[in-house]
Amino acid sequence: MQNFSQILSYITEKEKDILNFKDSPQKLYEPIEYILSLGGKKIRPALALMSFNLFSDNFDEVIYQALAIEMYHNFTLMHDDLMDKALLRRGKAVVHEKWDANTAILSGDAMLVYAYQLIEKTPSCFLPDVLQLFSKTAMEVFKGQQYDMEFETRTDISNNDYLKMIRLKTAVLLACALKIGAVLGNANDENATWLYDFGINLGLAFQLKDDLLDVYGNSEKFGKNIGGDILCNKKTFLLISALENANEKQKEELLNWMQLTTFDKEEKINRFTSIYNETNARLLCEQEIDNYYIKAIEALKHVSVADDKKQPLLSLTELLMQRES
Amino acid sequence: MQNFSQILSYITEKEKDILNFKDSPQKLYEPIEYILSLGGKKIRPALALMSFNLFSDNFDEVIYQALAIEMYHNFTLMHDDLMDKALLRRGKAVVHEKWDANTAILSGDAMLVYAYQLIEKTPSCFLPDVLQLFSKTAMEVFKGQQYDMEFETRTDISNNDYLKMIRLKTAVLLACALKIGAVLGNANDENATWLYDFGINLGLAFQLKDDLLDVYGNSEKFGKNIGGDILCNKKTFLLISALENANEKQKEELLNWMQLTTFDKEEKINRFTSIYNETNARLLCEQEIDNYYIKAIEALKHVSVADDKKQPLLSLTELLMQRES
Repeated sequence: MQNFSQILSYITEKEKDILNFKDSPQKLYEPIEYILSLGGKKIRPALALMSFNLFSDNFDEVIYQALAIEMYHNFTLMHDDLMDKALLRRGKAVVHEKWDANTAILSGDAMLVYAYQLIEKTPSCFLPDVLQLFSKTAMEVFKGQQYDMEFETRTDISNNDYLKMIRLKTAVLLACALKIGAVLGNANDENATWLYDFGINLGLAFQLKDDLLDVYGNSEKFGKNIGGDILCNKKTFLLISALENANEKQKEELLNWMQLTTFDKEEKINRFTSIYNETNARLLCEQEIDNYYIKAIEALKHVSVADDKKQPLLSLTELLMQRES
Repeated sequence: MQNFSQILSYITEKEKDILNFKDSPQKLYEPIEYILSLGGKKIRPALALMSFNLFSDNFDEVIYQALAIEMYHNFTLMHDDLMDKALLRRGKAVVHEKWDANTAILSGDAMLVYAYQLIEKTPSCFLPDVLQLFSKTAMEVFKGQQYDMEFETRTDISNNDYLKMIRLKTAVLLACALKIGAVLGNANDENATWLYDFGINLGLAFQLKDDLLDVYGNSEKFGKNIGGDILCNKKTFLLISALENANEKQKEELLNWMQLTTFDKEEKINRFTSIYNETNARLLCEQEIDNYYIKAIEALKHVSVADDKKQPLLSLTELLMQRES
């Protein structure tokens, strides 16, 4: 049984062994190496390893699939950043800025196929299940991204719509990582399903926490500017709750700000934050995070392995919930 | 044993049964249905079926993989059209024009995963081989596209470079279709390899013929305007050969035209075509097509099945070589 930091060291070391970016043409591979080098928390491969480790010990039996999931995740970041016209990722220039849009498209495509080439290393007894879950999840993430883009121009988004979207865009990939770990560890179906369920609830809590940090986080620790979601009128749980619970005056103020194309950024962020506080949107969001956190822990309890084996997953969950960045 | 038109009918019928675009969100699936509805020759799935049919009869055992290859091919068209800023595909608006760039990116990504979801239907005894070949090929096609884009701004491209590029961008996918058909038909390794080799040479001949038709084709039958490659200075076998064999005056004229940003389109096409004729570039290209055509037929001869079984593949090859569009 290994803890988060031991697992991260193992992943980093294996990445160097397994991933190869020295192939030609260089310009296809350099952007892949670049985006992976930007770091990131590597939560998804860590979850795969921790889940595997509930049932089995030799991480070499799960590392290719764990890296496939991380590769897939970074591919979605490369394409999403392009679609969202983002400028920075983890404080560094995004690929379509450092190179150009075509590079982000094609190197992203190559990352998706590379992810499948890592999945391909799965022993044939597990391959059909792992491949099917991986593709199903990949498709769900695209659906989530499509809803996310559609929500930008819609004004009738409910919190249910929002939760459905983040389940697809974020939660299913965490769940997939956990389930693949379980499958490769030879867990029974019931345990694999509970770990998937744990991942869904953890993923929802994780994304809601991310939204909360985007408003209330420490900008230095968070690694991106505070208030980004507010500036682009992103219909997060916070904004939807605020609009639902606002009085006439508060609602009018929010809607007015949302229609302005030129405005003082700091003032908009301050006013939105105040209204989030006044309408209890912050509190509702924190309660929703707790709600999914509790559901996640409940699901993990159902996994029939000794409690002490679950400690790494519990610690990582705790870390993600308490994080300030 | 079935001929091309019977095979096409079977593919079209099965597409309707197997492919489902009624899922949500609609905006993710509509562009996929749209690009597939534009038609196209469906050469790749037909090759998979014909290759399979050398060894086995029940097309239901190869149709998912054949459709996966066609889905993958259309995904590359969707992303390539965006990267190339094309306006029309088969006479209709391309996806990024009919919708927008983000739609082309995300629906294209979904097509790539959809292709893998079709591959997933492969019986587990064949799955590792089919999956590996499919991913290897998909990655090679990206490499080809990357070289193609890089060649646009380079001036030192040889015919060898060009042939290497079209091998990756075009030929390997035809070869992959043929080999997957053979594998699923339970062919031995030697036969599968000869069919792959047939596909590589057929693919090279096919692409060179495409380049030739872009200059010398009948614009109505060809479905796109004649001279497109000339207008964008595409370094095809024709242009490279012309530059290599041109005298001082011809070379200077070609290079001058290539530097102009505003010009009379018809005049440029006419002058390039004349120089292609004068420098024997057309003849060299036709000889090169014949050369690969003969190599393809040679490879097919090595496949150890009765000659009459090869008739559909031979007829299709003939059709592709004689085509005027």
